[in-house]
Amino acid sequence: MKIILDCFGGDNCPGSAIDGALLAIAEDKTLNVTLCGDEKTIADYLIGKTYDNSRLSILNASDIITNDDTPTLAIRRKKDASMTVGLKTLAQEDYDGFVSSGNTGALLVGASLIVKRIDGVQRCSLSPVLPTMIDGKGTILVDSGANVDCSPEMLRDFALMGSAYMKSVCGIENPKVGLLNNGTEEEKGNSLTKLAYQMLKETDINFVGNIESREMFTGDVDVIVADGFAGNIALKSAEGMGKVIFKMLKKYITEGGLRAKLGYLLLKPSLKKLKGIMSSDAVGGGVFLGANKIVVKAHGASNAVAFKNAILRAGEMAQAGLIEKIKTALAKNAEDNV
Amino acid sequence: MKIILDCFGGDNCPGSAIDGALLAIAEDKTLNVTLCGDEKTIADYLIGKTYDNSRLSILNASDIITNDDTPTLAIRRKKDASMTVGLKTLAQEDYDGFVSSGNTGALLVGASLIVKRIDGVQRCSLSPVLPTMIDGKGTILVDSGANVDCSPEMLRDFALMGSAYMKSVCGIENPKVGLLNNGTEEEKGNSLTKLAYQMLKETDINFVGNIESREMFTGDVDVIVADGFAGNIALKSAEGMGKVIFKMLKKYITEGGLRAKLGYLLLKPSLKKLKGIMSSDAVGGGVFLGANKIVVKAHGASNAVAFKNAILRAGEMAQAGLIEKIKTALAKNAEDNV
Repeated sequence: MKIILDCFGGDNCPGSAIDGALLAIAEDKTLNVTLCGDEKTIADYLIGKTYDNSRLSILNASDIITNDDTPTLAIRRKKDASMTVGLKTLAQEDYDGFVSSGNTGALLVGASLIVKRIDGVQRCSLSPVLPTMIDGKGTILVDSGANVDCSPEMLRDFALMGSAYMKSVCGIENPKVGLLNNGTEEEKGNSLTKLAYQMLKETDINFVGNIESREMFTGDVDVIVADGFAGNIALKSAEGMGKVIFKMLKKYITEGGLRAKLGYLLLKPSLKKLKGIMSSDAVGGGVFLGANKIVVKAHGASNAVAFKNAILRAGEMAQAGLIEKIKTALAKNAEDNV
Repeated sequence: MKIILDCFGGDNCPGSAIDGALLAIAEDKTLNVTLCGDEKTIADYLIGKTYDNSRLSILNASDIITNDDTPTLAIRRKKDASMTVGLKTLAQEDYDGFVSSGNTGALLVGASLIVKRIDGVQRCSLSPVLPTMIDGKGTILVDSGANVDCSPEMLRDFALMGSAYMKSVCGIENPKVGLLNNGTEEEKGNSLTKLAYQMLKETDINFVGNIESREMFTGDVDVIVADGFAGNIALKSAEGMGKVIFKMLKKYITEGGLRAKLGYLLLKPSLKKLKGIMSSDAVGGGVFLGANKIVVKAHGASNAVAFKNAILRAGEMAQAGLIEKIKTALAKNAEDNV
């Protein structure tokens, strides 16, 4: 699989991006990574590093899209930015996927305008696989924030695409799909989710009904369907609670004197494990479902491990034939509903 | 202050409700509580208990609204239910507030139809005060789920009412009001929050802009304004994450052998403290802002302490003249915008 990596635009770029690529090709011998960005900077960074150079190449791009850039303007005007060049090369040449930790909005616009959407898909969704803490198999959230105003039809397509993802990439036979809602009963919901519920019932995917956001990390469902506004709120709320809990625990340990400090030292490995599974580095970014090729967003603060995971995931998606599987699922649903 | 307590309809009723009332009148000597529900059952339960009977009375009601009842039908048809009788008595007689752990939807309908809304208020909002863990002063969330489809005007009224609450009940001079959104920048949001943002800018409350759900428990703002769908998703997501963290920690401690178990024992007081501040018992329920009198929802699984807190909070709201303060704030805003 051939993956293009945007080496500029994120917080720890280009160092962590390049290090992540080296880790990825060391771990997966079938992987080729093309580092996109300023050729000289990248080449200089690679000096003295050991890697299989038959599977690492550089694609020059002299400009950078930053987080301060307006997405649509940036994609239209910054023709030489690493993100724009990378996406164009992905669209036009024989590459399987693109990974970037840069401007999320620009990447969404680029995925839609340059890579283009699959026929019939109205909007691409940003879909991270959340760690399900109890069973560890993961749940994909479609959408986590790319589309803040959605139609029921969009939610139905999110469901079809998410189900195709969990089936093809994660090998789950008949993925359980839940609709994020303010209650589990069928009659619950706002005007959007009520309509989407009825539409999801008509599909041939394994729609199991509404789920509440308190069940997001339990693994009860494999796919969570949400409009991007609700998905974003749910995700960040859980993140915020996680942070607050660790902060408060730290405070109580400090206040608890010697006994608490000793307890903390003994419990440190367990607490570290807990922090590890909650870390966004473990997720490896979200994929823009609905684009014609694989486009993965790594989070802005990605370190080398996060980049490595994002690249490996992109490779797995390509290997699984994700795009074709999504096309088939969407076409089948359209046929069934003629 | 004279508070009516619905003793039936919640999970631990009537025992926990009555015990909570006894704790409340013991703690606040200015409080009168009227226990509403089946007279004989309540009287029997009180046998042998010690309390100031000049401040405790019984209001007979022979029927119960359960969680299986349809809200509007239940309020209309179950004329003798403890919730209906209690709300009617609150509306017609010299009482200051009503507390119930029963059917949330029915309580919302009852607050709107029986107690009625303040002039000009389109919808009542269910508004719990969230524990802000770092500073402990609390943040009110308006709305946490009563109204799943909102207009920008409704969000503006939620903001005005929430601000009046934090000022009058919690004594915060100039409460900071934030709009729950998918990003902090002014241009962020869905079609609803974008319009609400502009409307909030026009009010004379201390609107500090958008906040993300990851900041819900930091105490950065005193009032969080949200449509009930988003507010509900945010709240339950945080709750779910809290539960998952403790569940995983337990798992890691079990796996961690003797060392981890010893660490856990030493750290137990700190962990217990952490669980305590996260507990919904500490919150003491949410108030239906917008009703003509104080109507407080205690959570369905309330124990005696949760009931006590809900009753004390209702008394404090009445003492603070909350309803008048809300009326003044709404009228002032209407005047300013003529």
